[in-house]
Amino acid sequence: MTKPVLRYLESDRENAVNRLKKFLSIPSVSADSKHRGDCRTAAQYVVDTLKECGLDCELVETDGHPIVLATTPDELLDDGAADAPAMLFYGHYDVQPPDPLEKWETPPFEPTVRDGNLYARGATDDKGQVSCFLEAVRAWRNIDNGKLPCRVTILIEGEEEVGSANLNTFLDSNQDKLTADVVLICDTSMWNPQTIAITYGLRGLIYFEVKLHGPNRDLHSGVYGGILANPTNELVKVLGGLFDENHQVTVPGFYDDVLPITDEERAHWAKLNFDEIRDCLGPIGIDEGFGEAGFETLARRWARPSCDINGLFGGYMAEGAKTVIPSFAGAKVSFRLAANQDPRKIGPAFREWVESHKIPGCRWEVTEFKGHADPVVLPIDSPYISAAQRASTTTSGKPAVLMREGATIPVVSDFKTQLGVESLLLGFGLNSDNLHSPNEHFALDRFYLGAETTAMFIEELGLMKKRS
Amino acid sequence: MTKPVLRYLESDRENAVNRLKKFLSIPSVSADSKHRGDCRTAAQYVVDTLKECGLDCELVETDGHPIVLATTPDELLDDGAADAPAMLFYGHYDVQPPDPLEKWETPPFEPTVRDGNLYARGATDDKGQVSCFLEAVRAWRNIDNGKLPCRVTILIEGEEEVGSANLNTFLDSNQDKLTADVVLICDTSMWNPQTIAITYGLRGLIYFEVKLHGPNRDLHSGVYGGILANPTNELVKVLGGLFDENHQVTVPGFYDDVLPITDEERAHWAKLNFDEIRDCLGPIGIDEGFGEAGFETLARRWARPSCDINGLFGGYMAEGAKTVIPSFAGAKVSFRLAANQDPRKIGPAFREWVESHKIPGCRWEVTEFKGHADPVVLPIDSPYISAAQRASTTTSGKPAVLMREGATIPVVSDFKTQLGVESLLLGFGLNSDNLHSPNEHFALDRFYLGAETTAMFIEELGLMKKRS
Repeated sequence: MTKPVLRYLESDRENAVNRLKKFLSIPSVSADSKHRGDCRTAAQYVVDTLKECGLDCELVETDGHPIVLATTPDELLDDGAADAPAMLFYGHYDVQPPDPLEKWETPPFEPTVRDGNLYARGATDDKGQVSCFLEAVRAWRNIDNGKLPCRVTILIEGEEEVGSANLNTFLDSNQDKLTADVVLICDTSMWNPQTIAITYGLRGLIYFEVKLHGPNRDLHSGVYGGILANPTNELVKVLGGLFDENHQVTVPGFYDDVLPITDEERAHWAKLNFDEIRDCLGPIGIDEGFGEAGFETLARRWARPSCDINGLFGGYMAEGAKTVIPSFAGAKVSFRLAANQDPRKIGPAFREWVESHKIPGCRWEVTEFKGHADPVVLPIDSPYISAAQRASTTTSGKPAVLMREGATIPVVSDFKTQLGVESLLLGFGLNSDNLHSPNEHFALDRFYLGAETTAMFIEELGLMKKRS
Repeated sequence: MTKPVLRYLESDRENAVNRLKKFLSIPSVSADSKHRGDCRTAAQYVVDTLKECGLDCELVETDGHPIVLATTPDELLDDGAADAPAMLFYGHYDVQPPDPLEKWETPPFEPTVRDGNLYARGATDDKGQVSCFLEAVRAWRNIDNGKLPCRVTILIEGEEEVGSANLNTFLDSNQDKLTADVVLICDTSMWNPQTIAITYGLRGLIYFEVKLHGPNRDLHSGVYGGILANPTNELVKVLGGLFDENHQVTVPGFYDDVLPITDEERAHWAKLNFDEIRDCLGPIGIDEGFGEAGFETLARRWARPSCDINGLFGGYMAEGAKTVIPSFAGAKVSFRLAANQDPRKIGPAFREWVESHKIPGCRWEVTEFKGHADPVVLPIDSPYISAAQRASTTTSGKPAVLMREGATIPVVSDFKTQLGVESLLLGFGLNSDNLHSPNEHFALDRFYLGAETTAMFIEELGLMKKRS
């Protein structure tokens, strides 16, 4: 490690961990109104940190939790930085609720290091990864002339875990301040603890509640069984028909727009040496994969749509037996959308498919939840991907691999739609970090690696010329 | 009304209602252990009432709530009563839980008369109907010589609403005391408010919980959607296949043993002038029947088996969206069995059918709940049916009609199997009485009619000679 910025980061590790611990000790649970003040405290912590680094920073009020917005004053830019691509960094300071509390080995908001891992709610998602960026900026400001190789703008929101309800309005109102050539998002995973990954594709999401209403009250199944449509029976029959024998979704036109997987992508995936049982299903107790016929596991996970019933409810759900025909039954049904599928088409198609099943005496109620997300896939030949690969070669000894992700980060499509900017997803988490679960943790090694790689990515951007 | 016993009942109506109110004010909810003491209080109330009437009465302990057993001392029998058929009366003092409390117009255990109806939990099921019998016995004891025209034995249990777990043991241990020629059960319905009905057939019941277990924990549906069997999806697919396009159950052999409906039965049913919308579906908000192809509504309700999913559960069941693949999903599935179907054959057949669906990475757990019940059908030419028809002609001006019931009263098959006695089901409830629902009620007119008809049935038995 000869580069000054990396030397600085290495020398300052203990302080960096202490700063992260301070950030993690603020219980900024966005979903819980009693933590409203804590969310503001966490936002203010980010503001103070960025001001300490000399950035222009403000706490912007929204209808929900405030958003932190910081820009680089011109006097902080190194020679040539004005011609280099500008970066918008996105992250969030809010965290998931810590429940169930009794399953945490140490309290979720008392950050604790054990075996090289830092345990706390938000350790990875996303305070730890946000701190990788904060430490990178701090390092650049503390070496040489203290100037940045490229212009950085920072947007840290406080409602990512509750659907980012106020982000779209913010993006619309602040387009001028958010000008950038690329968005950097650190909220994804590495391929494995040794291999940094660039996530170039994400699935979209559309989520429904489907209810079938029948009789005007719960009925005795002895008195009424066999003479009217039981909403529970009929819901199950209809939703059971949502899948065919190839495990494909039967909604007409569902697959029409799905982009095929290219040979180049398959070549990248082959390098990953993925074993579905060892790397994915074994740890969750599954010994055999299952899914759409004709596609291998990574394809099904990343590049093919999926449909999951996320919840079933109706009638008697507690212990024991109750002989009831319920007045309604319902299901939560969501679709992960593959690249090029449009939730604006899939939504009505699903609704129409459900409602095409006429059940005598019953009525469908199909509710689409707010916040559907478009799938995204970034061009593999993007110069920013190359820059990130060079940065990761410097810090980890090998270029980042290219992967997709089956999950959804709605903000990525928002940045594309509202700001016209594509996002680079460079993350340092792992699926085994217990995101959204008890005992969330972040390996300190990956925290250091994240800060170093982000610092190098800033340098790589500084060496590039802005595209016209 | 020239008969003294009927005159007495008419003169004592106000007292009878007050006694019933007292009985109803005891919250004897058998399912709820915090009402254990209340169940005993209700049992003791019955004991005290029967002792007041001069019967030999005891409170018999069981592993659950106590059973009330009363017999007629010889000195209380009128001349000739020893040669007349002896009757065993069966009822229960326990009631369903009153939840949801907020839907009651007046509190469930504060009996209130409104518009000629007595509102309270248990008003019909079964304290009101038990009280018809208690009042009939009281009337016989308060006229003429105070003797009974036939021997009566009384069994009032406290666990009918929770599966009568201790009744079989009780029947086995007390066979000598329970000797009778006919069982009278008042826990069924009239045909309509003007027409008493004798229920000569009941469906049986077998009840399962079916769970499909998959991954060892709940999973993120973005990360895992499409690559493993989601228990919720697969449960719905399998159970959706439980019904064919004729709405028949697809379990092999399911219909093999079902008795055909006789022409004589259809002739009786035709007299009922049944209109499915007016008499059955309309009041529950259903404008179109639905069920097994080729059978009319009364046949489907009374003489054909049915299958209902009584509950669905799994994954996220609360408000809003959660992107989860749950580690399991489950359903409550019950079958109403038609005459001659055997739960001992249907149970294993259903289990085998479920388990024949192999789901990669998943495991079935099929639990049959205790207390399956055989269907029963009594001979239409029984002399006790004729006696009950004569009694109802005296009190209501016309003979009781003959019907079946789709529901199950497991004790009826127990009496047949364990005591060798057939049951006569003569009830004064109506399906509109909100049994098991908020605002349960019993029309006072039907309470009076029930007491009168029971008193006349006792007289009719006294006029018969015991069959050898």
